[in-house]
Amino acid sequence: MLKEKIKKIAQDAKRASREMAGTSIQEKNGALLKMAEDLVSNSDGLIEANSKDLEYAKQKGISIAMQDRLMLNRDRIKKMAESLLKVSQLNDPVGEIVKMWRRPNGLQIGKIRTPIGVIGIIYESRPNVTVDAASLCLKSGNAVILRGGSEAINSNIAIAGILSKAAAESGLPEKALQLIDVTDRSAVQALLKMDEYIDLIIPRGGHALIRSVVENSSIPVIKHDKGLCHVYIDSKADLKLGEDVAFNSKTQRPSVCNAMETLLVHKDVAGKFLPSMIGRFQKAGVVVRGCPKSKEIANDIERASEEDWSSEYLDMVLSIKVVESINDAIDHISCYGSMLAESIITTDYNRSWKFLREVDAASVFVNASTRFTDGEEFGFGAEMGISTQKLHCRGPMGLEELTSMKYIIFGNGQIKK
Amino acid sequence: MLKEKIKKIAQDAKRASREMAGTSIQEKNGALLKMAEDLVSNSDGLIEANSKDLEYAKQKGISIAMQDRLMLNRDRIKKMAESLLKVSQLNDPVGEIVKMWRRPNGLQIGKIRTPIGVIGIIYESRPNVTVDAASLCLKSGNAVILRGGSEAINSNIAIAGILSKAAAESGLPEKALQLIDVTDRSAVQALLKMDEYIDLIIPRGGHALIRSVVENSSIPVIKHDKGLCHVYIDSKADLKLGEDVAFNSKTQRPSVCNAMETLLVHKDVAGKFLPSMIGRFQKAGVVVRGCPKSKEIANDIERASEEDWSSEYLDMVLSIKVVESINDAIDHISCYGSMLAESIITTDYNRSWKFLREVDAASVFVNASTRFTDGEEFGFGAEMGISTQKLHCRGPMGLEELTSMKYIIFGNGQIKK
Repeated sequence: MLKEKIKKIAQDAKRASREMAGTSIQEKNGALLKMAEDLVSNSDGLIEANSKDLEYAKQKGISIAMQDRLMLNRDRIKKMAESLLKVSQLNDPVGEIVKMWRRPNGLQIGKIRTPIGVIGIIYESRPNVTVDAASLCLKSGNAVILRGGSEAINSNIAIAGILSKAAAESGLPEKALQLIDVTDRSAVQALLKMDEYIDLIIPRGGHALIRSVVENSSIPVIKHDKGLCHVYIDSKADLKLGEDVAFNSKTQRPSVCNAMETLLVHKDVAGKFLPSMIGRFQKAGVVVRGCPKSKEIANDIERASEEDWSSEYLDMVLSIKVVESINDAIDHISCYGSMLAESIITTDYNRSWKFLREVDAASVFVNASTRFTDGEEFGFGAEMGISTQKLHCRGPMGLEELTSMKYIIFGNGQIKK
Repeated sequence: MLKEKIKKIAQDAKRASREMAGTSIQEKNGALLKMAEDLVSNSDGLIEANSKDLEYAKQKGISIAMQDRLMLNRDRIKKMAESLLKVSQLNDPVGEIVKMWRRPNGLQIGKIRTPIGVIGIIYESRPNVTVDAASLCLKSGNAVILRGGSEAINSNIAIAGILSKAAAESGLPEKALQLIDVTDRSAVQALLKMDEYIDLIIPRGGHALIRSVVENSSIPVIKHDKGLCHVYIDSKADLKLGEDVAFNSKTQRPSVCNAMETLLVHKDVAGKFLPSMIGRFQKAGVVVRGCPKSKEIANDIERASEEDWSSEYLDMVLSIKVVESINDAIDHISCYGSMLAESIITTDYNRSWKFLREVDAASVFVNASTRFTDGEEFGFGAEMGISTQKLHCRGPMGLEELTSMKYIIFGNGQIKK
């Protein structure tokens, strides 16, 4: 029964995706504007639906932080509407011919950007993801199937209801945006097997959710997994610049995936660099854990254990390691890093390129904060997540990353000899 | 035990992939040349190993055509060596900066091409795939794990042995090229779960193999599935050109995925076009099956059943359908096509663009044969297969499609506000 329901949703999405591929940018933007208006004008209903989720969250004893993430008020609804307006202002990625070349037989071959088709998004808690995911998928010409967390089910049903009604009233296909309103986990399992109809699954959430999706999906997945980022202070570094970048990478927003978790410092500058750096961290409330060598330099820090090197704290905790060389730093990063964002601080030209070349991460920085690993900061105007895999796209995902390509070939009667 | 063996292979490949990413183009090309030489100088050994496979194939009563595909002789070994030389002459895709832009805060952001990492290839029968897959993966800086069919196991062990020895002697990491020498099917199952070490799986073979890989892999897959291609003769078409293109699309090599299986003809030109077209097909030995309307025009053809529209004949059989309009043609293609290669024959500008836009296939042609859907014909110099999915790459795959991207960011102390 549930399987049949999910199959019907997937088939409807597939049909809608064909129509979506043919919609004009005017229609898509018109729908986004209407969605923004309707969210705001239905604020009361949204807040009421959201209050049911909040009530349930309190009963379940969910943390205050989580309750706050879940909560909708007029201001947050306005913010969601604003993000819809912003997406409407982005360039349409569909139809861009990114390359064109001519073959000796006269064939003109081009690569043109197309929608992917049907995208399934599986996510947890925050209701604004419903709005962001829907708007980016529709803007890039895709049909979207949303499956939010059970904690936000009432809010999500209300939001998706408003959005899909607005989209349909603006001329987009009715089934271009669908929400799975069943909280039963087997709904996700059924969804993950619909590879005949769904082209891509994007899971957004904790490690357990992502593992479960990767292990069970027969549909291609783009995963956004954990972030364990490093800043490496080279022996030839502007130490003041390094201190600022490292401080920013750790403390500007410690709870996110592109924050630094481990600071690597070349042994030649550790004695000069660490005392002031550690003092600044401690003053800001960061718990610092160091390797034996850094403890020699600053003996009031905690001792780091092996476990620290592979810990994604997402908190005001930092591990520090003194390394022998740039090779030692790169080895440490390869061994423990999650390959999301890595930064070197150096004034040496060759070492900057060595680091850029050899560090196999989605984003590799020279003399800048890891916190810039972000679709917005990269100039994409919006972000669907940060891919931590190497297929299709790696790093921050904008609208372009929600598209595919096809070849178009212009001939005048060519036949193969 | 087997699982441990496969895990060891995957871990070794992962380690080798780090080293591979740093090898120079000179080293990679040097290895390819040595591999070519060593294949030829070891022809006797290869032919002897191959004879064991042929013996076993005969005992098992495998078809003569399949036995022929399996067979190695001096000439075929020379051809394999030549294909290695060709790959050595292709441009190195790794390290190309495909895009670079500047942000208002002064960050210079670039996208640079990198190897994917570890690629697993699962394929059937023909031993030359061992050479092609290995050479393309190594040239693009990846480590590769090969898993060929049991029918060719002795040939594959011999070939891979020569190749990996030559690669190691040329300075590539020893484990950059590994063959799984166990024919047990559970080896594949174990391989497909090694997502911690393997970045991509490419299955090449029949539909059953591909389904099994897609359903069981926790590693991203690029699949090369079936090909059910159409040529549509529009009412405004150069009919002579259309006849030549349709004939070529069907008969130039009917056994391959980019050959035409169904010919669609606009009703306004069917009476004029079909008699001579069908006569030409019949003369060439093509069995023609038609819809009722085409049978009215040429009553000596067979009647097509519903099943014909979804049949990938891969043979000298063709189905023909008379359609009402270009929309009708596009609907038929959407419903029955495998979205690999589709061609319109028209002299009408608007209809050519309508077809290019609305047909959701990997390659969409105007006035040219579907047979050009091929990495070689597209100018890639080599082909790893033709992707029939939309993620990562779609259509013919060359060296570029065996690479990933990473972002490199040049700063001078930027921190996030």
